[in-house]
Parts: sequence; C-alpha cells; structure tokens
Amino acid sequence: MTLILSNDDVEKLLIMPECIEALEDAYVEMAEGRGITRQRSDCITPTSYSDEAIYGLKSMDGVVPKLGVGAIRINSDIVTNPMIGNTRRRVKVPAAPNDRYVGLVLLFSTHNGEPLAIFPDGVLQRMRVGATNGLGVKYMARENVETVAILGSGWQAETQLTAICAVRKIKAIRCFSPNRENREAFSTRMTELLGIEVKSVEQPEDAVKGADVVMCGSNSLDPIFFARWIEPGMHISSIKKPEIEPAAVRAAHKVGVHTHDTSPILVVAKGANFRENTKGAGWNSANQLDFTKFPTLPELIAGHVKGRDNDEEVTCFLNNLGMGYQFAAAGSVIYKRAVEQGMGHSLPTDWFTETVHP
Amino acid sequence: MTLILSNDDVEKLLIMPECIEALEDAYVEMAEGRGITRQRSDCITPTSYSDEAIYGLKSMDGVVPKLGVGAIRINSDIVTNPMIGNTRRRVKVPAAPNDRYVGLVLLFSTHNGEPLAIFPDGVLQRMRVGATNGLGVKYMARENVETVAILGSGWQAETQLTAICAVRKIKAIRCFSPNRENREAFSTRMTELLGIEVKSVEQPEDAVKGADVVMCGSNSLDPIFFARWIEPGMHISSIKKPEIEPAAVRAAHKVGVHTHDTSPILVVAKGANFRENTKGAGWNSANQLDFTKFPTLPELIAGHVKGRDNDEEVTCFLNNLGMGYQFAAAGSVIYKRAVEQGMGHSLPTDWFTETVHP
Repeated sequence: MTLILSNDDVEKLLIMPECIEALEDAYVEMAEGRGITRQRSDCITPTSYSDEAIYGLKSMDGVVPKLGVGAIRINSDIVTNPMIGNTRRRVKVPAAPNDRYVGLVLLFSTHNGEPLAIFPDGVLQRMRVGATNGLGVKYMARENVETVAILGSGWQAETQLTAICAVRKIKAIRCFSPNRENREAFSTRMTELLGIEVKSVEQPEDAVKGADVVMCGSNSLDPIFFARWIEPGMHISSIKKPEIEPAAVRAAHKVGVHTHDTSPILVVAKGANFRENTKGAGWNSANQLDFTKFPTLPELIAGHVKGRDNDEEVTCFLNNLGMGYQFAAAGSVIYKRAVEQGMGHSLPTDWFTETVHP
Repeated sequence: MTLILSNDDVEKLLIMPECIEALEDAYVEMAEGRGITRQRSDCITPTSYSDEAIYGLKSMDGVVPKLGVGAIRINSDIVTNPMIGNTRRRVKVPAAPNDRYVGLVLLFSTHNGEPLAIFPDGVLQRMRVGATNGLGVKYMARENVETVAILGSGWQAETQLTAICAVRKIKAIRCFSPNRENREAFSTRMTELLGIEVKSVEQPEDAVKGADVVMCGSNSLDPIFFARWIEPGMHISSIKKPEIEPAAVRAAHKVGVHTHDTSPILVVAKGANFRENTKGAGWNSANQLDFTKFPTLPELIAGHVKGRDNDEEVTCFLNNLGMGYQFAAAGSVIYKRAVEQGMGHSLPTDWFTETVHP
C-alpha cells in the first residue's frame, strides 16, 4: 500500500527532538558522501491569478541509502510580494480550492523503488527548518546559553524555539516582531507550549541586548539583525539569506551554512514579474557573501570542522537553502511510524506503479 | 478532485497525432521563452536490491503557462547494466511490488497551484519520445520520404513508427534488431497496427540501404548507425546520444537536437556502482560532440533555423535528453480529456493540498 498522510498525521508522528536526531544522523551520511541531495530548482512563470503574482513550480530531491529512502518535495505556489510596513514580504497565496496551499512530499524506497507515501510538506517543512537551526545551535553555540532573542513571530518562529529548547537548557526568551498583536499572541502561546517565559518586547534591541543566542525567524526580505548588535560569545542564527546584515556575518569568528548549493536553479519564463518582485535589497546584499567558503552543517556535525573554539567567539549559522535530503531523512521516520500505527489513507501501490517500461 | 489515472487511461485519452500537435504548439512557446523546463536530475545511490544494481531518483519539471499546466515527472528506478550480445544494455528492473516499475507524472495548475492529476509515466514517456522524433522528421526530413529503416524492435521502436507515419506518407518499413524472434514479432505486430508492411531483415545494412529515413529506437549504449551507411538526402534519427556514431553526425549537413541541456544533473553517492555501469563507450564518444552548437527542435519548429535546404542534404535529429516540459504539454491534453470523459479515480484535492503554510 502507498500511504496518503495529512499534516495532522505528520504532527502526531514526529516531534522536534526526533526530527533533530534523524537529521543529525543523516547529515553524517551526507558529510561522508553516502547521502545525496539535488539542488532545489524553481520554475517561475506568469499566472492568470493576477498580473503581479507569479507561479512557481519548485522541487528538490534527496536520498539517504542508509535509511532506504529517497524523497522529492514539490511546491506549486502562487506568490505575491506586497510591502508590509517598511519591508517587502514574500507572500504565498492559498489559491488552491478551499483556500489551500500546495506542497507535497513523495517518499520512495531505495530497496525496490516503490512509492511509500505522499504527504503535504507544511508541518515537516517548518520542523526541518527549526531542526536545522537547532543543530546549528548544538554545534556552534556555547554549551551554557540560557537567553534567546527571537526576531519574528510567525509560523517559522515557533519551531525555531522548540528546536533550541531541544538542544540547550533555555531559561528566558524575548520576542520582537513589528506587529504588536502578533508578537503578544505568539509570546503567550509559546510560553504555554515551552513552559519557559517568552516576553514580547517593543524594539528589536530590547530582545537582542544580552541574549546568548539571536534567532532570526521572519519572512523579511531585508536585514533584521545588524552588526552593531553583536556581543561577545553570541550565536546568531538565520532561516534565510537576507535576515542577517552581511557586516554582521563578516564580524563573526565562525560562520556555518546549511549547504554550498547557495541558490536554487532558476528557470524564469518571459513575462514573469520576477526580478522586481522577489530580488529585494536584502537578497542582493546577502549575495555579496561567498557562502561556499563557509563550512556546512554536515561538515560541522561530522566533526570535519569545529563550530566554536571558546566561549568568547561570535558564531553565526545561516540556513541558506533547504534540501530535499531533509524530507527523506525525517520522512523515513514518519513513514515507519505511520505504518506501525496504521495511520493515513492506504491506496493500492499499483495505482502509482506500472507494468509499462518507464 | 485530483485524478489518479492509469497507463490504460492515458493510452485511451491521447493518440500520437494529438501528442505531436500538443508538443509542436508547446515548443513554439518554449522557443519564444514563454514556456520553460528544468534540466533532468539524477540522484544515484547503491541499493540493497543487489551489489551490481543502482538506485536512481530522477526528476524533471516543466511549465506551459499558455496551457495553464506545470508537470513534474519522477522516476524511482532499480537499474542494472548487463551485456546482451556484444553490447552493454541499460536495464530497468521492475522491482516494486507485483513486479512493477515506478515512474510518475504529477500535473499542477498554474492558475491556482492545485494538483490536477497523478499518473504513471510509461505510456506517455514513449509517446512523447516518438512524437519528438516525429517532429524531427517533420521539420528536417524531405517532404517525399517513403521508406523507413527502424533499428530496434523494443518498446521505443513502436512509437517511432507511429510518429513518422503521422507526419509523412510512409510506404515501406524495414526492421533490424539483433534478436530475430523479437524483430519478427515486432514486424508482424506493426504491419497490422500501421497497415504498412514492416519487413524483418537479417542485417542492419539490409534495413538501411536505400532508406529515406533511418530511425534508431534501441536501448543500446553503443553506436548502431555508422557514417559509411549515409546516402544523399537521408534523414537519420536517434532516441538517445550513443546510437549514432559521431562521424555520422559530423557528416550530416544539418543537425538538430532536442535540447541544449545535454546531460542530466548527476549527483552520485559514494559506493554507487555507477561509472563502470552506465558510462559505456558509446556515451563517451557521443560526448565528443558539442550538442549546444546544434539548433534545438523548438528553434526548428518556431522557424528560427531551417531544418533542410534541399533534397540532397543529409539531416540528423538527436533526441538527446527528455524534458519535463513534454509531460506538461501532453499532460494538459490528457487531463482535459479525462475530466470530460469522467475517467480515473477521483480523490479529494484536499488530500494533496494544505492549510499549513508550505
């Protein structure tokens, strides 16, 4: 049978510490060349949805032979880029029937090729982003960090906090994001979820000052963390390229990145309103940095490179681009558990295989 | 609803002349930059299936905004490379449950992102290969060609013949392949299917001599057509790089290729028995040619380049690499017809979409 799972299923089947563990093991495989991933690709075209919007068909693959699983993650997005406050945001529109988004993970067996499962990417997508930055903290931040600043109060910010709490004993968290209502609701919710006080603050400086770790977890296309805010021993973490001002990255003693595939392979159709829309100032300035010079998370985890030499150093981890590999590694755990627990809709595997030579 | 279609459905929904027409229109879009495709990628790893075999997770995407459709085609293959006769063959193993292969096409709407359909790739895969070489004939061969040599008698050979018969008035076909039983069975079957005599011959020269068009449609990893066989006015056609000896390509007056993406993006894991297995002499010698110097089929169809200047010229079309784009173009016709005719299993689209931000 091929399993069709939902985001609710995925949420029940995988918790953050297990996601971190699955990725940690898989990254060692990758550092040793035994696990592989294929650089994300984005096909961008116009869409009849609106003149300003673009359609994006994005995909990324990865295979973890040790786990017997390959995965492909696909996004079929309608994207707009409105100004919100002073910064340009990238906003995916839930344009599919019933106001829904479209992101899918397909899992395959490396033993016999069979399609094992299909499930939406949303829950796993932000969990693996969190787990990745959590591993950045585990391998680069001081052992004794206690205070966290989180910049952002949206969907990604939540798993940034659950991840850091899975790898360090955190005692205090301060949250800043531009919209007071959002950050207060987020702080209340996360205080309850984590059992640690998350305090909403009025200015980013109020969050950052004295923090051991600063986690950027926003959807900003412009920098939200600046070099002038750096303090000795600080670990700075980001979920995407433009969040940290390049001067701040340069000021860090040690910098790690997720991958050396620094940008997706872009294929843009004539007429797609792309350049103006999504290439903000933040991305352009982030691209001043040569990401291939920094060690990758797999190299840090496998011990090829040290993440930190002493407690005074400033460290910085840039989760610069996702990998299909993450969906294979965490997906293998989700699939195994789903089978054990009899979850999901079981469809005949014959529906997704063939007697005809492909 | 999201439709799950079978190969039987696809076969009923799309016939060769319509597949050719769909691709022809879509290639004009591509030549004008309005339609786009993403280069195929292959992730290759070891597999527990056997020490000699490899696992391949392959994918290719394409979007035809004019048709409102994007497609991703995925293969999850167990591949072996035995010697058959004197040549090395690439053999996909039907290793999935019930001895089946794994190849899938997913179609998405560019209007709202929704997943429209999922179906196996097999029937469409060879139909679009045939249609592509058929378009090569249409835009490069003489108007008055009547005699065809087909080298090969397998799965791909069949659609090569249905394709050429859709674009030219063919009167005689001669078939050679190394296994007499195969080529005789093929010739009998195709004679009936096409209503044109397909004659099985003992030697490749018997097929080629005096033929107006030579179509290579084999699974050989070594050359099967040679420069010494060329005759004035001949059109030579191939479904993959190594079939035509590079000297024969060089001897042609005009050469066209399918795409300038001349090889898939390859990511190979440590321990995968890959180089020895699939890089045969044929591929290496084919790679002496600079495929990016030849015009592409979209350029030929859009009239940017002429396929032939007179009836004496020798022309050559190399279907060097497939495109996800083909699955989007032909897939849009299949989907439209399936909806009209109420075919396939309808699943709730909500199973493949999400409320969670991807």
